[in-house]
Amino acid sequence: MKRVTLALGVLVSLALFPAAAQGANIHYWIGAVPTEWNVVPSGRDPVTGNTFLPTQTTMNTVVYKRFTRNWGQLMPNRFWVGDNDGIPGPTIRAREGDTVFVHFRNMDTMFGQSHSMHFHGFHYDFSSDGAFVPGVTGVAANVPVGRNVTYRLRARRGSVGVWPYHTHSPSMHMPESKTLYGMIVIRGRNERKPVRENIVVFSEHLGFQTINGRAFIGNTPTFRSRVGERVQWNVMAIGDSHHTYHLHGHRWRFAGQNIDTRNVGPAESWKFRITEDEPGTWLYHCHVNFHMDAGMVGLYQVAGRSARGTSGGFEGLLAGRP
Amino acid sequence: MKRVTLALGVLVSLALFPAAAQGANIHYWIGAVPTEWNVVPSGRDPVTGNTFLPTQTTMNTVVYKRFTRNWGQLMPNRFWVGDNDGIPGPTIRAREGDTVFVHFRNMDTMFGQSHSMHFHGFHYDFSSDGAFVPGVTGVAANVPVGRNVTYRLRARRGSVGVWPYHTHSPSMHMPESKTLYGMIVIRGRNERKPVRENIVVFSEHLGFQTINGRAFIGNTPTFRSRVGERVQWNVMAIGDSHHTYHLHGHRWRFAGQNIDTRNVGPAESWKFRITEDEPGTWLYHCHVNFHMDAGMVGLYQVAGRSARGTSGGFEGLLAGRP
Amino acid sequence: MKRVTLALGVLVSLALFPAAAQGANIHYWIGAVPTEWNVVPSGRDPVTGNTFLPTQTTMNTVVYKRFTRNWGQLMPNRFWVGDNDGIPGPTIRAREGDTVFVHFRNMDTMFGQSHSMHFHGFHYDFSSDGAFVPGVTGVAANVPVGRNVTYRLRARRGSVGVWPYHTHSPSMHMPESKTLYGMIVIRGRNERKPVRENIVVFSEHLGFQTINGRAFIGNTPTFRSRVGERVQWNVMAIGDSHHTYHLHGHRWRFAGQNIDTRNVGPAESWKFRITEDEPGTWLYHCHVNFHMDAGMVGLYQVAGRSARGTSGGFEGLLAGRP
Repeated sequence: MKRVTLALGVLVSLALFPAAAQGANIHYWIGAVPTEWNVVPSGRDPVTGNTFLPTQTTMNTVVYKRFTRNWGQLMPNRFWVGDNDGIPGPTIRAREGDTVFVHFRNMDTMFGQSHSMHFHGFHYDFSSDGAFVPGVTGVAANVPVGRNVTYRLRARRGSVGVWPYHTHSPSMHMPESKTLYGMIVIRGRNERKPVRENIVVFSEHLGFQTINGRAFIGNTPTFRSRVGERVQWNVMAIGDSHHTYHLHGHRWRFAGQNIDTRNVGPAESWKFRITEDEPGTWLYHCHVNFHMDAGMVGLYQVAGRSARGTSGGFEGLLAGRP
Repeated sequence: MKRVTLALGVLVSLALFPAAAQGANIHYWIGAVPTEWNVVPSGRDPVTGNTFLPTQTTMNTVVYKRFTRNWGQLMPNRFWVGDNDGIPGPTIRAREGDTVFVHFRNMDTMFGQSHSMHFHGFHYDFSSDGAFVPGVTGVAANVPVGRNVTYRLRARRGSVGVWPYHTHSPSMHMPESKTLYGMIVIRGRNERKPVRENIVVFSEHLGFQTINGRAFIGNTPTFRSRVGERVQWNVMAIGDSHHTYHLHGHRWRFAGQNIDTRNVGPAESWKFRITEDEPGTWLYHCHVNFHMDAGMVGLYQVAGRSARGTSGGFEGLLAGRP
Repeated sequence: MKRVTLALGVLVSLALFPAAAQGANIHYWIGAVPTEWNVVPSGRDPVTGNTFLPTQTTMNTVVYKRFTRNWGQLMPNRFWVGDNDGIPGPTIRAREGDTVFVHFRNMDTMFGQSHSMHFHGFHYDFSSDGAFVPGVTGVAANVPVGRNVTYRLRARRGSVGVWPYHTHSPSMHMPESKTLYGMIVIRGRNERKPVRENIVVFSEHLGFQTINGRAFIGNTPTFRSRVGERVQWNVMAIGDSHHTYHLHGHRWRFAGQNIDTRNVGPAESWKFRITEDEPGTWLYHCHVNFHMDAGMVGLYQVAGRSARGTSGGFEGLLAGRP
């Protein structure tokens, strides 16, 4: 019965969406990997001067990491997919029309829990949902340690945007599963890419309010750009709290309004673009006061048009990439 | 003086809004009725396997229930107005141009509290507000046990949408009043109705996070549809918390963006439509992690185009109704 | 080096934004002033009848107050900039193209803390940001007691809207700094002004949920208008909580939808306009239930078209002003 449904789904896909054939097939190898994670590597909040011991800021947990083809080895840092440190997980990128195959392996030998991957934004057959439904779903929603699963995802017109992915197995409420999340970026078929793309993921860990798994300036990302560049900000939240993202010195449009602060609740995600013309060392942060005080703040350094020495190699720089 | 204002209001209405005359007059008889309500009738969360005793999940409270004309008898289940079980109360339906008369009777002999009805979305004279204002409002905002009040509501152009209604008497902060809420659906004069309409009301009761007054899969509604149907989702929240509604495997448009998750704070309400093409057993839930863990999750079953045996009688099916 | 950056910024401004030259130069003198503030001056919630002692509702704190040119004296109440009582601080008004100079003096002799002003919405050189960045910013982001700073702000096209301003010095997490906030109103070059403009700022103080620094009906603003008037509502939040603003008996448009309730998280801000045609004594309030119970509710009195005796002198009336 399940196979019939699957086969039917494939047939329906082929019949209804021939346009997808023009897109690329993209493969990702992503593991759920145990790791030690320090939320405040500097041990310090430079605004208040408060200091923290590593024992207060370090946890053993499980994160998503990307591997080379056929699980060859851990991917090195690649700024266009994130730093592959683990929080957030590797950025999954596609364009409208592409089909993405995510090969997932549960390597969580530390906690021995089953995990999964659930993807927002993409179209997929129900068998690729990765979300546990009692009595209905199979191994793809509850992958035991050592097992592999491949999720097949299609980027269609309505998929264009930025989205979360995260675990959705029965163990998702356990502390070590709350670090299993990342971002998806899907562009339109002919959408012009930005020069820089800054990924901001709000969550909470060990009582700190985190951006990309870190708390306080110097630990959270320091993004960079220069005047004249097209800069895209991708913002999402995951966890238990609603936030309000604020970027100093800049404004953008939303729903017919000029804004510089926007709500982002758990699993909400959105983007905006600016053509940079505001040099300075700007703060970006959650504007919930106690979240900012608990670490949810970072820096954005914009060099002037004539500045030298800031090109290349920055987190967020997309130049020369697809 | 109050009568003068009322009379003036009627005159202004007649003068300014003659178009309303083309609409229908619709009558609802709704009582505030004491009831015993079990938030987790199954006694079980099938995701975690956690079990609950009826004493942990059952409360005595007051709900809105619909009666036949002139309080003849309790309306039986009518899927197009909700199941009339009480949480949420009966769905109040109108089209642009209609005038709705809600005849309200306070039958709360259990707690002996005054109650009322306050309606969002509709136009109405101040005397039909149903919200207690110290020193200003009369019985309509504070209806004693045994008393009747009629609220007169007009659906004008700006009323089109989905909206909450709820008590707004001085007793609204008492626990037994926090179950007095329901949804209003107002369509445009010529708006095509969907085939299915799924009503999702987020709130919290007895420490559980609830959808339509219930917690956990199997207790919250299991909505159904089939490929090819126009399905409308009406989402609102009431109570103390902000939520983010997420539907698996589907996306819709909001403010120029593709989304599959959207914020809904207390008394916010919105709708979206999909033409169903994603067969499966999908989750819908609040994406605030601890809300989902505390019960705010349900199922949406979509049958394939060729499926048989799923027609008729489902919660949410509007076929053949106005 | 800083001077070079500043000079460069001025040159860039002159080169890129010649249109700004058509605007006005507007000067504000604003001090951070210690004060005693009573959140519930009436000592009473008229809905529940609960009473409070002044010791429960009064705090020593610091607020923004406006002075006449060159610190001549405290400005008297001017309804078009707020009542200058302190919470919120004086409303800063401009039109697209204007340049605003805010001369700030820290007069906080009570707590001896450094303070600052950080402005949303405006364009400004980084040196006018007023937000403390460790190792980068100077005195403008951390103004000691007795010192003056001038912030130079430009209202450009993307600045049109309503916005918060607030302190952003290292002391911003201290209780006495949490009352340092106000609203900015920037209109388009040729935007028609409303007849009334009602400013609603949600925050929390002393455990109460406040509107413009006060809790409960009779302490929060009672706004007034009459049928036929164009009324603008400016809503913002500041602090730790998300809210949902609701106005009884009225609806407006947002993102293609009719609404009467809208989310507002910390530092979010938005406006809407109505042409008044709903006479009555309406509630406006936060729809988070426990926020309303804790004071976040006020009155809006709308007189009929033929009413007499309500003209002139009301909070929010803009007639005859620029």
